[in-house]
Amino acid sequence: MPKTHSDIGLIGLAVMGQNLALNIADHGFQITVYNRTTEKMERFVAENPNTPGGVIGKATLEEFVQSLAKPRKIVIMVQAGKGTDAVIDSLVPLLEQNDIIVDGGNAQWTDTIRREKALKEKGLRFIGSGVSGGEEGARFGPALMPGGDRAAYKELEPVWKAIAAKVDAKTGAQLSGAAPGKPIEGGVPCTAYIGENGAGHYVKMCHNGIEYGDMQMICEAYALMSGLLGLKAAEMGEIFSEWNQGMLGSFLIEITADILKQKDPATKRKAFVDVVLDTAGQKGTGKWTSVSALDMGVPAPTIAESVFARCISAIKDERVAASKILKGPGKKYRGSKKALIAAIHDALYCSKICSYAQGFQLMRTAQKEYNWKLNFGEIAQIWRGGCIIRAVFLQKITEAYARKPDLANLLLDPYFNKTVKNAQENWRKVVSLAAECGVPAPTFASALAYYDSYRSARLPANLLQAQRDYFGAHTYERVDQPRGKFFHVDWPEKGRPQLEV
Amino acid sequence: MPKTHSDIGLIGLAVMGQNLALNIADHGFQITVYNRTTEKMERFVAENPNTPGGVIGKATLEEFVQSLAKPRKIVIMVQAGKGTDAVIDSLVPLLEQNDIIVDGGNAQWTDTIRREKALKEKGLRFIGSGVSGGEEGARFGPALMPGGDRAAYKELEPVWKAIAAKVDAKTGAQLSGAAPGKPIEGGVPCTAYIGENGAGHYVKMCHNGIEYGDMQMICEAYALMSGLLGLKAAEMGEIFSEWNQGMLGSFLIEITADILKQKDPATKRKAFVDVVLDTAGQKGTGKWTSVSALDMGVPAPTIAESVFARCISAIKDERVAASKILKGPGKKYRGSKKALIAAIHDALYCSKICSYAQGFQLMRTAQKEYNWKLNFGEIAQIWRGGCIIRAVFLQKITEAYARKPDLANLLLDPYFNKTVKNAQENWRKVVSLAAECGVPAPTFASALAYYDSYRSARLPANLLQAQRDYFGAHTYERVDQPRGKFFHVDWPEKGRPQLEV
Repeated sequence: MPKTHSDIGLIGLAVMGQNLALNIADHGFQITVYNRTTEKMERFVAENPNTPGGVIGKATLEEFVQSLAKPRKIVIMVQAGKGTDAVIDSLVPLLEQNDIIVDGGNAQWTDTIRREKALKEKGLRFIGSGVSGGEEGARFGPALMPGGDRAAYKELEPVWKAIAAKVDAKTGAQLSGAAPGKPIEGGVPCTAYIGENGAGHYVKMCHNGIEYGDMQMICEAYALMSGLLGLKAAEMGEIFSEWNQGMLGSFLIEITADILKQKDPATKRKAFVDVVLDTAGQKGTGKWTSVSALDMGVPAPTIAESVFARCISAIKDERVAASKILKGPGKKYRGSKKALIAAIHDALYCSKICSYAQGFQLMRTAQKEYNWKLNFGEIAQIWRGGCIIRAVFLQKITEAYARKPDLANLLLDPYFNKTVKNAQENWRKVVSLAAECGVPAPTFASALAYYDSYRSARLPANLLQAQRDYFGAHTYERVDQPRGKFFHVDWPEKGRPQLEV
Repeated sequence: MPKTHSDIGLIGLAVMGQNLALNIADHGFQITVYNRTTEKMERFVAENPNTPGGVIGKATLEEFVQSLAKPRKIVIMVQAGKGTDAVIDSLVPLLEQNDIIVDGGNAQWTDTIRREKALKEKGLRFIGSGVSGGEEGARFGPALMPGGDRAAYKELEPVWKAIAAKVDAKTGAQLSGAAPGKPIEGGVPCTAYIGENGAGHYVKMCHNGIEYGDMQMICEAYALMSGLLGLKAAEMGEIFSEWNQGMLGSFLIEITADILKQKDPATKRKAFVDVVLDTAGQKGTGKWTSVSALDMGVPAPTIAESVFARCISAIKDERVAASKILKGPGKKYRGSKKALIAAIHDALYCSKICSYAQGFQLMRTAQKEYNWKLNFGEIAQIWRGGCIIRAVFLQKITEAYARKPDLANLLLDPYFNKTVKNAQENWRKVVSLAAECGVPAPTFASALAYYDSYRSARLPANLLQAQRDYFGAHTYERVDQPRGKFFHVDWPEKGRPQLEV
């Protein structure tokens, strides 16, 4: 017997919306769903008659809104951008003071800030929540990054905590239920209030930027093993399986092992990866992360390199043409196979640490820019389960911020410092070999340059600033004078034509 | 005896505006100037009584406008952004049909597109012209990149061609007049109509992005000579002077030599660069270039790395603190000094080629996006004189586009291909050494990875796309099927909790 009013509503029954709705219903909440195409809603309701909480469908927005307990909680799962705005616009006239709209799409955080502000002026509350973990995450436990009105989140919290992925408090390992769809007992839910207005979506965006980095780095490890050692896909699959047992243990390493061991479903003979075209798509969140880094002046070069790597993968025809014209080096690797595999492992781990350091520096700067109070240890904790970048490694980040909540850079944490110190010789060897043998490893190289730049008390920017003073009178500061005192040299006028031609 | 109406007007008498006005007057054009602070205008006019064309000052915008021959040509040299909009807004009511406003500031090209469109609706014509070369360039010959209404540019052209820098048609070397302020005889002027609406400012922005790359690359060469060989500033100054005679010959290399040889004006003993603080500022055009690359999906990683290098230079205190905690490698370079200097030269040249290749690919994509018809050979020609990146090398780019106007990438041109082929062993050696010895060389490394990626018929993006198909059902294409046919594997559901914990 359904309750007279549902606990929560959801608009938008594409795969993510369907799965999130079922996840919510699995945890005993009664949910009303609405979809622009009514048929899709009806089919969904018919296919899911016996959920613990109950799924109810409504054909009109009016009925949908009326079916919800007050203050209403409405989750929007539609295409980010204009789609979200359109749904909000049509909802607003139907809502009452204090009702809560939750945007679970991949919104740009600036849109979320704008929407939160506009709805607040109308007396409505808005939560922009990052939802990570893809379709499976949405169905059985995503990582959830809600930002917006804190009191509104408190009302959403029971649902959000129930449906989120759960991890073991000590090890950070993701927990599972007795069976798919069965609630998970105990564990720490992968969600927490992130901060005001756009904070949740900003953090979700950084998650995705970091994900871009992780994926590209794994590809570089694969390209190096393949290019320098000539390893076959299945053999590399075994190596990734082995790596998955150690410090690199993570969802992405695990699925990489699966993929590399996979046979091509069409030919049944070849390795699957060998028939996949080498052009990667992107949906924009990695780009947004890089643009935000550039806008705020935060060094996140490794994340940007991973975005550009996808761009260059996309111009396949140009590359094929260029490969016939541009020559590489003659050099081949002739050392120990085992040693190189170990070195690639270390290069991947060190590069990953730098990429995360960049992502966290980005969030640290954004919190100043937007006046958020982010809890970095908690954010790493949220990411330990449900989402694409979930990894053993994130537990180390949580621990680092527990040791020092105002840590300036992950690299400075004793654990990461020691790890990089011990592994750097291998890392440097791999970047060096890649350069010499002509295997592109843009993120490994960028991460290393980032590490070496960050640990440089003195960079050659003194020369650069002197150049700026020379041609643009931009002035310079001195090492022997306090900061903020500016000097200028009256340089010879190189732009002025000289008497001789 | 002044003419009743001036040939041209100029608003905004900061250094750039003053210098451009004097440059115009030097070439026989009568110019009326206006400045918000009248005193500044009066002083400027009083200080420049005897120019060939004549400088006339007006205290109000009305008088200023009335003093100009029709159709009026008014150059705005004020702070980009709101400053420009404010001047345009106050000018519009005073102008007549077909008058021409020329924005010579560092406008964002999207603003220029917007302004051109808005003014066209009012019957006015607008030209957004990049002006490059800093203060000295403005005074004695800048590179000018005008975009907008073509017919309007035709009316501005006599002025623009007269005041622009001039280069020798054959060698591309910048020409000089008999004395400062004397017109230069002969030579090719460094200006040409770039394209509609924002094309001029877009090309100017790319120029600046390339300039960011050039400057950072020179800094890396300097850091490597200093870090690996322990060379002193003056010694490096000599090396840069020598390089300036060869393929690297350019304004930036020339002033780098000057800077490195310069003694500190305060202490008189130390080398100047050694007392300059290693924090570089930026005004945004490098960032805009990188953001535009990201937005259009064009790989320009090396330009982005140069922007991020400035960002990391800016966090000086953090670096100093980190330098005490993070350790580098023990390895030192022990090879030949001469050989390494030659290798750094080659690394710089190859990296520079890649950075320009990225800049030109960016313009190539932008022209499709905005429906411009850019002449890349001509753009390189414009940049051969006046501007900060002027270089012998640009002549090679002009020649490359003369050979093949639709060249897909500079690297594919026979000259550049051969250069990189011959120099790549040295380039690889330098990137490799930088990694092993812990000297950050982010743009050298990024450029090499770009080269190796671009010449790869197959990149590891097959694995990346397989990952995307795995966790997000993003589908993949196959090497044995036509493009545009998408496939999906029904992967095991890793996101679904397993029975075992």
